[in-house]
Amino acid sequence: MPPRILAPEIPHSERSVWQVVDGDSVSRLIHLAAEEPLAIDIRFGPLADRQRIRLATTLRTPGDDESLAVGWLVGEGIVRERSQVVEVRTQAPRDRAARVCVDVHPDTEFDPVPHRRLTAMSSACGLCGKELLDALECDVQLPNNRSVVEPAVLTALAERALAEQDLFRATGAVHAAALFDGLGNLLALAEDVGRHNAVDKVIGRLWMSGAWNPDECILFVSGRAGYELVQKAARAGVPILLAVGAPTSLSVELAERVGLSLLGFARENRFTIYTGRERIAMNPSES
Amino acid sequence: MPPRILAPEIPHSERSVWQVVDGDSVSRLIHLAAEEPLAIDIRFGPLADRQRIRLATTLRTPGDDESLAVGWLVGEGIVRERSQVVEVRTQAPRDRAARVCVDVHPDTEFDPVPHRRLTAMSSACGLCGKELLDALECDVQLPNNRSVVEPAVLTALAERALAEQDLFRATGAVHAAALFDGLGNLLALAEDVGRHNAVDKVIGRLWMSGAWNPDECILFVSGRAGYELVQKAARAGVPILLAVGAPTSLSVELAERVGLSLLGFARENRFTIYTGRERIAMNPSES
Repeated sequence: MPPRILAPEIPHSERSVWQVVDGDSVSRLIHLAAEEPLAIDIRFGPLADRQRIRLATTLRTPGDDESLAVGWLVGEGIVRERSQVVEVRTQAPRDRAARVCVDVHPDTEFDPVPHRRLTAMSSACGLCGKELLDALECDVQLPNNRSVVEPAVLTALAERALAEQDLFRATGAVHAAALFDGLGNLLALAEDVGRHNAVDKVIGRLWMSGAWNPDECILFVSGRAGYELVQKAARAGVPILLAVGAPTSLSVELAERVGLSLLGFARENRFTIYTGRERIAMNPSES
Repeated sequence: MPPRILAPEIPHSERSVWQVVDGDSVSRLIHLAAEEPLAIDIRFGPLADRQRIRLATTLRTPGDDESLAVGWLVGEGIVRERSQVVEVRTQAPRDRAARVCVDVHPDTEFDPVPHRRLTAMSSACGLCGKELLDALECDVQLPNNRSVVEPAVLTALAERALAEQDLFRATGAVHAAALFDGLGNLLALAEDVGRHNAVDKVIGRLWMSGAWNPDECILFVSGRAGYELVQKAARAGVPILLAVGAPTSLSVELAERVGLSLLGFARENRFTIYTGRERIAMNPSES
């Protein structure tokens, strides 16, 4: 089994609430998923003329911020090789927002205009501050050279992930994303109030470790498969996305275009293949 | 029972997929929730100098676009009275995006800068293109003068809404929002790939009808209670928000500040009161 990369401890706050059951109310102390702003900055340009700009401000579950920042850059297509990330630094908060700065290699070509989120993103939001039609573009084409995955491996992933979703069990208010290898071994898992943040965190974490082969990985998400998640998987080179929920029409359109296997409605013994069934081992039966 | 305002037919697309059950695959024709861009424009200013600008582009489930546009303006605090909306027009699509223009009364004060979404929002995103800290501001204070609501009314809402969620039953991929009166009568329901869109649609629909008393309403949402939904409810003057899912820490913080009753984890016989319990009829029992 490959080495497991653990997430740092994830914070939450406590609050006194009233639980009402059959009309009777009881005071209880419960856990709330924390949600706080994070600013993502980039330092780029030739050594003689380094610049630093703000790329985005996102609302996220605090913790694993450096993975989130790197995963965000990968999802934007700003960095494509591990060697392009020189340093990732967490800095003291300002204006209530935590800050992470990613230093990219001087040779990394970077045009801030199409990537810069001039303003804020909500935790529910993976695509803001960009022209819509640009965003729907994704110049990735995933190769189809991996070995096929057994259905039994895929149907086991949701339960495998749930066993690790500590924050979800404590609060019921967070999404999870996980990366598995083709045999169903868990490589990384993250929980976040924003599902796109959870995806950025697992991709960023493995990407920084340098020890992964995205082409042999499966990205699992606990919610629906929004098309921004298809885009993030494709840009990271992960060819299979399995969601507990359903995709939308734009997700399916994009998955087809980039050659990604998009699977939804993952349940105990079943799932639905929307695109890319050549990567799944199947015994077609009578319809 | 108050008159029910019905939503127009909601579109979806069909697609051939493979359903894999216990390793066997079957080809099926299924429904996908449609997701397409909508541009929201505003026409404003004195009669002698009318201006039109693009406020936002959102990804939404097509249908009921005029309600969505008006609800969006209400949620932003741009219009506060029904008389401020002079006309709402759907226009021919351009660049793949449908367009709605809201004409506001010449006397309506409107500064585009803080409201304008310069770029695109995803369907998962209710808050983009605005400075984060500005967005967390909400200068509303909800009055506390309504009659209390019985717990049995609140616990019945989720099932009542589900009975009307046709698109959800067809696709499994959409959120719902509904407005109920204090006795649990359904006033309006909308389904959308974006939960904030569904909220904008129900609020916009009742708001345009002119025949509602927001202070006596309950806003129900099928998912989690993100703080942008708390903001939308507060700006529309709806003092109770009931979510099937959980709130985040920022939702609770904002609800407390504006005086909104925030209820989560709505189940068959129970719910949790995070803030504003004075609006709920309760028999405190021993803890």
